[in-house]
Amino acid sequence: MKSHREELWFHVPGRRAFINITPQVEAALAASGIREGLCLVNAMHITASVFINDDEPGLHHDYEAWLEHLAPHAPVDRYRHNRTGEDNGDAHLKRQVMGREVVVAVTEGRLDFGPWEQIFYGEFDGGRRKRVLVKIIGE
Amino acid sequence: MKSHREELWFHVPGRRAFINITPQVEAALAASGIREGLCLVNAMHITASVFINDDEPGLHHDYEAWLEHLAPHAPVDRYRHNRTGEDNGDAHLKRQVMGREVVVAVTEGRLDFGPWEQIFYGEFDGGRRKRVLVKIIGE
Amino acid sequence: MKSHREELWFHVPGRRAFINITPQVEAALAASGIREGLCLVNAMHITASVFINDDEPGLHHDYEAWLEHLAPHAPVDRYRHNRTGEDNGDAHLKRQVMGREVVVAVTEGRLDFGPWEQIFYGEFDGGRRKRVLVKIIGE
Repeated sequence: MKSHREELWFHVPGRRAFINITPQVEAALAASGIREGLCLVNAMHITASVFINDDEPGLHHDYEAWLEHLAPHAPVDRYRHNRTGEDNGDAHLKRQVMGREVVVAVTEGRLDFGPWEQIFYGEFDGGRRKRVLVKIIGE
Repeated sequence: MKSHREELWFHVPGRRAFINITPQVEAALAASGIREGLCLVNAMHITASVFINDDEPGLHHDYEAWLEHLAPHAPVDRYRHNRTGEDNGDAHLKRQVMGREVVVAVTEGRLDFGPWEQIFYGEFDGGRRKRVLVKIIGE
Repeated sequence: MKSHREELWFHVPGRRAFINITPQVEAALAASGIREGLCLVNAMHITASVFINDDEPGLHHDYEAWLEHLAPHAPVDRYRHNRTGEDNGDAHLKRQVMGREVVVAVTEGRLDFGPWEQIFYGEFDGGRRKRVLVKIIGE
């Protein structure tokens, strides 16, 4: 069994963003030399997500508006977590809806995707450097 | 390390449905000959889910009503994604709540389930043929 | 390839709780002797979750209030599932928001975590003994 590990780093200047990280994950897979196996991609931070969906700006706008409706950022005192001095209580909730991680099959050396699947980093509390882990195991 | 790959195909005539796919995943596992490992089951489409829960029609009715409350289908112009000509903006949101994939342990040649766990395909934008990927790795 | 399996048992006296299970998962990993691989941790029951987030009591209060807002427990007859004689319809919905499972990378014999990642068991229908599965594969 082979394994391969990479960290991807991001710095979103604003609070929230969705970034297509498929090319970076494909590059990690190519570097791994793994042909058959599983590829885990997870946010290493608890106010961010990794998820798979469509690379369509209108959809990303819809996600943004919907998540803000489900878990509004303001007023920040609505979240007890923010009594710690943080203002990111909403980000911990939004991340649960969108998920921490994806596991993607590796087949014949490629990410085994359906026609529209793309991997995204979802940032809900930006303004600093944060990481995504790529771990691939297989042969 | 062994690996095994299968696609399961579905055609839901209406817009939404939940289909128990546990027997098909068990058949894929039997065909694989894998005794110990991990089994990934994921929707290959971004308006569908794979999830694990109970095979109880009342619960499926509750999921349907709850998801429609969280992310209503109509009016379709509430979603910017639908400006592309689609009417499935809601399906992309519902799929995030229910999830893209499950990873199930394989132990002694069987899906290592608790007493009520069953795997479902959740369709949120039917009317055409769509796929689920089963990828099993192990020994 | 090596594999290792453990069950963790919990008995939450009340209806709901969040329990940090990171030490038990780390102990399972140490017992496995696996240095590189993937660690699956999943609820074996369909009214419970395993998820990764922050070990901060204010945040757990926020999750509790938010999930109760998204999928209220009462009145229990709001859920068709409860016509079966259960009163846990809400728990099946809450579990979908928080997720069934996490997959954690194993690197150099350790759970490959970001700075604040901790694994939690989320109970939404307590009052009886329930299980979490830990399955680790790798070398």
